[in-house]
Order: sequence, then structure tokens, then C-alpha cells
Amino acid sequence: MLELKGIGASAGIAIAKAYRLEEPNLDIQKKEVADKEAEVNRFNDAINQSKAELEKIKEHALKELGEDKAEIFAAHLLVLSDPELLNPVKDKVQNEAVNAEFAMKETADMFVSMFEAMDNEYMKERAADIRDVTKRVIAHLLGVEIPNPSLISEEVIIVAEDLTPSDTAQLNRDFVKGFTTDIGGRTSHSAIMARSMEIPAVVGTKTATGQIENGVMVIVDGLDGDVIINPSDETIAQYQAKLEKFKAQKAEWAKLVDEPTVTKDNQHVELAANIGTPDDVKGVLENGGEAVGLYRTEFLYMGRDQLPTEDEQFDAYKTVLERMEGKPVVVRTLDIGGDKELPYLNLPKEMNPFLGFRAIRLCLEEQDIFRTQLRALLRASTYGNLKIMFPMIATVDEFKQAKAILNEEKDKLIEEGTNVSDTIEIGMMVEIPSTAVLADQFAKEVDFFSIGTNDLIQYTMAADRMNERVSYLYQPYNPAILRLITLVIEAAHKEGKWAGMCGEMAGDEIAIPILLGLGLDEFSMSATSILPARTQIKGLSKEEAASFKEEILSFSTTEEVVAFVKEKFNM
Amino acid sequence: MLELKGIGASAGIAIAKAYRLEEPNLDIQKKEVADKEAEVNRFNDAINQSKAELEKIKEHALKELGEDKAEIFAAHLLVLSDPELLNPVKDKVQNEAVNAEFAMKETADMFVSMFEAMDNEYMKERAADIRDVTKRVIAHLLGVEIPNPSLISEEVIIVAEDLTPSDTAQLNRDFVKGFTTDIGGRTSHSAIMARSMEIPAVVGTKTATGQIENGVMVIVDGLDGDVIINPSDETIAQYQAKLEKFKAQKAEWAKLVDEPTVTKDNQHVELAANIGTPDDVKGVLENGGEAVGLYRTEFLYMGRDQLPTEDEQFDAYKTVLERMEGKPVVVRTLDIGGDKELPYLNLPKEMNPFLGFRAIRLCLEEQDIFRTQLRALLRASTYGNLKIMFPMIATVDEFKQAKAILNEEKDKLIEEGTNVSDTIEIGMMVEIPSTAVLADQFAKEVDFFSIGTNDLIQYTMAADRMNERVSYLYQPYNPAILRLITLVIEAAHKEGKWAGMCGEMAGDEIAIPILLGLGLDEFSMSATSILPARTQIKGLSKEEAASFKEEILSFSTTEEVVAFVKEKFNM
Repeated sequence: MLELKGIGASAGIAIAKAYRLEEPNLDIQKKEVADKEAEVNRFNDAINQSKAELEKIKEHALKELGEDKAEIFAAHLLVLSDPELLNPVKDKVQNEAVNAEFAMKETADMFVSMFEAMDNEYMKERAADIRDVTKRVIAHLLGVEIPNPSLISEEVIIVAEDLTPSDTAQLNRDFVKGFTTDIGGRTSHSAIMARSMEIPAVVGTKTATGQIENGVMVIVDGLDGDVIINPSDETIAQYQAKLEKFKAQKAEWAKLVDEPTVTKDNQHVELAANIGTPDDVKGVLENGGEAVGLYRTEFLYMGRDQLPTEDEQFDAYKTVLERMEGKPVVVRTLDIGGDKELPYLNLPKEMNPFLGFRAIRLCLEEQDIFRTQLRALLRASTYGNLKIMFPMIATVDEFKQAKAILNEEKDKLIEEGTNVSDTIEIGMMVEIPSTAVLADQFAKEVDFFSIGTNDLIQYTMAADRMNERVSYLYQPYNPAILRLITLVIEAAHKEGKWAGMCGEMAGDEIAIPILLGLGLDEFSMSATSILPARTQIKGLSKEEAASFKEEILSFSTTEEVVAFVKEKFNM
Repeated sequence: MLELKGIGASAGIAIAKAYRLEEPNLDIQKKEVADKEAEVNRFNDAINQSKAELEKIKEHALKELGEDKAEIFAAHLLVLSDPELLNPVKDKVQNEAVNAEFAMKETADMFVSMFEAMDNEYMKERAADIRDVTKRVIAHLLGVEIPNPSLISEEVIIVAEDLTPSDTAQLNRDFVKGFTTDIGGRTSHSAIMARSMEIPAVVGTKTATGQIENGVMVIVDGLDGDVIINPSDETIAQYQAKLEKFKAQKAEWAKLVDEPTVTKDNQHVELAANIGTPDDVKGVLENGGEAVGLYRTEFLYMGRDQLPTEDEQFDAYKTVLERMEGKPVVVRTLDIGGDKELPYLNLPKEMNPFLGFRAIRLCLEEQDIFRTQLRALLRASTYGNLKIMFPMIATVDEFKQAKAILNEEKDKLIEEGTNVSDTIEIGMMVEIPSTAVLADQFAKEVDFFSIGTNDLIQYTMAADRMNERVSYLYQPYNPAILRLITLVIEAAHKEGKWAGMCGEMAGDEIAIPILLGLGLDEFSMSATSILPARTQIKGLSKEEAASFKEEILSFSTTEEVVAFVKEKFNM
């Protein structure tokens, strides 16, 4: 039995066998073969095995993950039937008496570099297909297993260095009971994804992949950030008890699903959810979300080889609005760049992507992309209560420009005879320090603010939130951050606007009483945090929380703030 | 005649022949040689030519650049006399009948990868030596010239993609009349270096290296950011006249060298200079600097293969303090990391180095490095008017920790019987937004603030100042920046402390009246900006400037601020 300490990224407890998601070792060596016929047969067998496997994955993907994902595997199957690729491999075995792995690799490398050299997105995608397929064939030739996360058919806990959005897209919620990763923090993609999928997760363990072998029993305790490897029966029993207690608590929370969020002194605040796809709406409603406070539209653009069309986007936005049945839906326009790359946009590599050409900066320059999204949103606006916000605004000019483009597209649509709601609120993310400092000026232009604390903290402290070496500076309760938040809320209220928050901080137990006291109107968080937050808020008095405001803002360190909050609110 | 538009990075006009500083093409092919003896002789000749060249460079470096730089070339000469390297090359030519270039490259590559694989800083440096020397020998074998900037012996204008600090360290101020680069902005290293060397420079031309051939006549107009290639006689005459006018203006400025900086209404502010090395003090005094407002100590650590010793540092600090003859010298402790790497520290690559493990963050963890520097500073403190400041402070805790370490070293030195000044002021850079927002709390802890606008702007606007695609967001006059600066100055004054500024903004014509009105006490800039700034300030009334403060801080955009300042101050 061995225990690893990490960061609890998604609440709950999972007990299952480990499934390591890792790049297999496919190193190959050139060998001479005596029996060339036998080698060609071995190659044909590997092709057939790969095809059978891909058929299975494709079918599974179609059923579980949708047509989009299934198409990737259909493309792979096509490659495996292409004589232009297969014949040169067989010729090479015959003519040079080399092993099939080597012949396959040499041939594939040649095609890959040829296709990649072409300045054509389609051919580059084909190069990627060949690379993927080659891996699979070589794995069969070597007798090495490669992980097929979409094929998992028993209950497992995924163990990986990190999980990318596309890894997680392939996971089947029925069988993946939890996961644990070496890297990441509470705000890394894998953590956010875990909360949205409602699977217990512990990230940032540093050594999970080094310590956990495939198939061993593992407990992932997302409540306390613990991972137990090879637990004793006694320990399993303890954690099962803890899980029962957690389930009971969840049942208590569940009673609040249809209740409004009101404080002890009868003040209402809105508890909203952050979502990434239309499928996430189910979780929002099940968890009693009063709104979608942040719909991250990036996922529509990711894991594909070209931009989504206006109609594809329209369908997604309409679906979310309809499913939310008139409850507010705040859609954030495209926030691409930084750590979120889109290969097909061919953005240049940047030295500091977090300080680079991304989000609204890109949208104002690549206006075709932006206008397509805005048209899709405007067309969908009649299906629910839509609010639009722009990400990474730094200057008043940028906001005015973005809004002007939106209005242009609105006018065009109306002229074309399309119905567009005329009550759409237009707001902005406050995630760049300049906008918080100048919030009084921005408040005159916007309908609402949504404070994006994940980025606001990283810029205000000049500390990359993905960089472990400076993670001690990621301080949500630092008085400097709280002062900026205060500026934003006060500026909004002075102009009769509302201020929300859609960073992870909005669902944080320590932050909630502070934010309530500062007057925050809307708290948007992972859906699974809503009911615990509602429970907490029902026990708080807004007036009392507000009475601590001046004192909290006069502190000089995070530690003073935390100690004060814990004392005043008996935590 | 062709004109390029760039950014005037250092004032003045230079007219001279172009000298392209670029990596030569040293591609080689494997060839069979018939006469192996002749090939070995050709190799020996190339070795001898390389040695002669290196001897010349070494002597020159010793005379012009100091012992440190000369040692690099002495190490190269040693490599060229090493039979362990040379004999295998000759053997290869003899045994395999290949050309000497090929044999040299193969042999050198083998040694380089062997040395680099060793986990030993010394051996890695030897690998770098072999790589450098191999380039030189192959260049001689191919008859290709490689640039030796330290050997330039006629008046030239350097044309390069960019200039690194080590490139510039090799330049001889007597012959390098100006330079122009493809990339960079007013705050890039090459620009700062040009101002400190007082040579006209135009950076960010995008195409200088694409358009300027070696040896053609070039005019670099650092006043207006123009580069003229192959100018007509008439154009040369025009620019000579412009240069004369500039010289006359400089002569006017020079009359103010010994005058204090006082406004029309008789208010004194301090005009200080930013320096990088003890040699820069000369320029500070010649330009009438009243203080050194920023001594960047990084250069002591760069261009070498190990940390500088305490004594080496002590000598440098003592020299600067003595040469400044009792005038204030603000030394910034080590700001390494970000774009300033030290190979021998083996820092891990970071995704966003500007938001990473650098400056005080590194010093608080690698305390040996920090303590050595602090001891050297404390020992030097009795030789002048020393003030110490810490870079990249984000939290009050960090400042307290750094100060505590300083006091520990001070106590140790006193215990050891070393004299230490007891009037050293301890301050901090304000370059991270959190510190400006919380300036009232920091002001209780520090003796002074120095606002580092270059970084403060990039973090406040979340825009990498080296990234051309977001350069429109590098806005010194943005009201958000001006408000943060105001917070810092007011907080300092409330606690009876002083506030200075050591970013490029402090010497900027538009910024000076604003900053004067906000109450800035000390302006630290490139030495060459001091006299123009003094001239400007003598014509301003501090009271009048202060009367515009509220109005300026109520604007919402940069454009409004600039238009207002230009109108009110007749610019």
C-alpha cells in the first residue's frame, strides 16, 4: 500500500483498477529476414488486425461519442486499404530482405514528410492519419499494445502524465471511474474536464505514472487529493464508508436542486455553471444551476481539421439555449490561442502564449472567423435568453470594436429578414488587470462583467498558472486580487450593471463569503459545485459578510485574509 | 536609393558602409579526394589560418574588451592545438579518402555529442568551444568568410536580424557608427544597448537584412527611425546637415550638464540613468546624471560559464559607487530568467518565461546565489551612496523574505568585522500589477519604489512586449497604467517614502509632463535622454502639470490622454 498526495480536482471517491494511458515504446531496429514470404504474410496479418481493431473502435465511437469522432477512424481505415502505401512496404521487404516494421516505417516516413511539406491543410491532416495508422500497424508487428481509451469496457481509473481535451473526449463515462495525473492544478484542463464529467480526480501527483502499474487496484480520493495504490481490504472499506458519507451529503445537497439561492438575510444571488458543450447542460440542470454563466465555445473548434460552419455553431448554441428553457446563457466568443491551439489556423509559435495573440485579439484581426460565430449566435438568440461576452479585452477600444462588429452582423441579419432577439446583453470578461483598474470606464460601455479569475490572477501576479515553480503565487485571496474584484463590482453597480465571476474562485468555499460581502451578483462554477455552494450561501448573511469588506481589503497578505475568513465564518 | 521605416531606438545619425552580421552558409558535402597528402596539407593550412586569426582577435579583445572576453579566444586556440581532435581528422582523410571539411565535421560532431552527453557544465562548455572552432576551420576550408565583429577596423553600420547582448559586447565603439536590425522595439535589448553605447540605431525594420548588401552605403537616422540604402550625394548632404543640427542641439543640452533639474516653478526632481556595467558610469556623468536609478546587475552573470564570485561582484559594485562620487546608486539584485537565460544555471524551459521562475523568485529559492550578491553589495556599501532594490516582487511576503535574508547577511558581515554602511535604503521594483494595487501596504515595508514600466505595462495589458502581433497593446499612456502609477506615488508619499521610475517611459517626452504632475520623484532613463529631459522639465510647471491629474486619470483610452497632453503642453 502506497499513498500519493496530489490536488483534489474533482470531488468524490473512486475505487478501481489502474489503466495507464501512455505512449507505448515502438522503437524498431532494421533486421535482415531470411524468409521474405513469411515476412510479407506477417505484415498482411498486422494490417488485418489493425483493420479489425479500427472497425471496432469506429463502431464504438459512433455509438458513444458521435459521428464526428467516428469519422477519424473511418479515415484511418481508408489509409489501411491504400495500395499506394501498402505495396511499397511489401516491395521493400521482398527486394531488400528487411523486416516489415522497418519497411513500414521507412515507407510511411517518406509519405509523411512528402505530405507535410505541401502547404495544404488537407494533405497535412493525411500525414497525421498515416502517422497514427503506422503506429498501430507497427504495434501489432512488435506485439506491443497501444492504449485505445475509447475501447475501455471495464471499470478503470485512468493514470496518465496529463490528459488533453482530445484524450478526455474519447473516454466513456460509464467505465472511467476516476483519474489521476502527474501534472496539473485545480484549474488545468484535465481538472476542469473531470468536474464537468463528474468523475473523481486527483491531479498534480508528480509521480502517479512512475508508481502505478497497469491493473493494480487504486483509490482516487478527489475530496482530499489522495491516491492509494494497492490498498488493503481495511483501507478499501474505510474509503467505501467515506464514499457513502459523501453520497449522503450529495443527497442532502440534491434537496436544494429546485430552490433559489438565498442568504440567511433573504438576499438572492445567482448560481450558474460553466459548460463546454451542449451535452453539459444536463449536468447544469441536474445540479440546480440557475444559468449558464460561461459557455466556452472553444470546444466547437477543437479536435477537428477545419473551422465549424455557421450552421454547425447555430445548432450548438440553439441546443444550449433551448435546453436551458429561458434561463440565462452567457456565451463567451472564441478564446483560442495561449494554451489552446488550433492546428488548422497555423498560428505562429509564441514565446509567451499567455501574453500573446489570442481570443479577442485574434478575432478582431481574423474577422471572418469572428463574424461567422457572431451570426450563429445572433440567429440562435431567439431560442432562449442569450448574453454574449468577449474574452481577453484589454482596452475600451477593443470592446467598442467587437461590439461594433456584432452590431454590423445584427443589422445585416435583420436586413436579410432573420429574426434576432433585441434583448441580448453584451458584456466582457474581466481577466486582464487593465480592465479591472479601468472598470468605471468599461462599465459605461458594457451590460455586464464576468470576472475570469483564472487569468486575472495569473496576470496580476505575473505567474503562469500552469508552471509549478511559481504556483505559490497563484493566490485567489491575495488582497490585490480582492481589491481588483471590488473595483469591478462597484463600477458595475454604479452604472446599474451586474457583475459575475466565472473563474474557479466563484465555487471556492473560502472565497464565497468574501465575494458575497463584496456584492458579487452571479457565481458561475463547475456544475457539481453549485449545490454545495447553495448550501453554504443559505447559511450566510450578506449583510454580515459585507460588514467585513473594509477589513479584508486592508490586509496585506493571503494568509491574513484566509485566517480572518476562517475565524469569522467558523470554518 | 531605398528607404526602410523602422523604430528610432537611439538618437543620432550615422552614415557608413553596411557590415552584415550573419551566420555564414557552411553546408558541406562528402567528397572523395584523389590526393590525400594534398588534402591533409589543405587542412593544416586552414588550421594555421584559423590560429592566426584567433591570435589577432584575442589580442584585439584583450586591448579593447578586457581580459574576460580575450579568454574565450585563448580557449579556442587551445582546441586548435589539440592532437586528440586534429589527428583523427587527418587519419580520416588518409584512411577514407574524404575531403577535410567532411572529416573535420564528422570528428568534431563526435566529440561535441560526447562532451554534451556528460552531465558536467565544464565539458559542455568545451563542446561549445569545439563547435565554434570547427565553424572557423570549415569556413577557411570552404573559402567562406565568417564575421568577426571584434575585428572591425573601419567605420561601419551593423546590419543584423537582431543583436544579442554578447554580440554587442564584442563591438568596438570606435568603428561601429550605428546599427539597424530586422526585429525589436524601443525596449528590446538591442535598443537599450544602442542608447547605452550612444550609437544611432533603427530597429524593427523587418527587412534590413533582406535589403542591405555588405559594403553598400547606409544612413541610419535614429531620430526618425529611417534607414536609407545607397543614398544619393544630395541625400547624404541633407542628412549631414540634419546631423549638424542634432549636434548643435546636443551642444545646447550639454550646457545643462552641471545644472540641477528644476521646473519653472522651482521644484526639483531627480534625473537618473539606467546602467548595465561600471563602464557605463562615464556616460552617466557626461550626460549630467544625478544618480544611477537602475544598475542592472545581470550583465555580471552573462556571457560566462559560471557564476561571478563575491569578490568579482564586490569590485564591480565598488567601482560604480566610487565613480558616482557619493551620488545615489540604486542596484537591482539579479533579474535572471524570462528572456535572460544563464546556460550554466540549467533552468528548465518554460512555456511562458515572462510569467515564470525568474528574478526574486529564483533568488529566494537559490539562496546561495542571492546571498553572494547581497554580501558583495553590503561590502561595497561603504564606498558610496548605495540603495538596493528587489525585482519582480509580487507579494509582501516575498519582500519581507528578501529583506530578512539581506539583514542576515549584514549581521554576519558585521560579526566578521566587515564595515557595512548603515544608511542603505532597501526598495523594490513595482513591475507586477499586484504590487501597484497593494502599494499602500508595500509602502509600509520599503524605503522606496522604482516603477519598472516595461514589465508593468506588459503584465497589466497581458501583452508580451516582444511579440509584434500584440504590440498595439503596449500602451504606456493607457489610463489603467497611469492609475497604477498614481497609486504607487501616492502610497509612497503617504508613508514619507520616494517613488521613482526606471522603465523607458521615464524618458519619454509625452510621459514626462504626466509623471511630473503625478508627483514622481525620480526619473531614471538612458543616459543620453537625461539632457533632453532636463531641458523639457525646465520648461514645465509642476503645479500646472498637477492640475491636469484628475482629468487625465478620468480618460478611458490612450488616444484621449495623448491628445490632451499634446494640446495642454503645446507639443
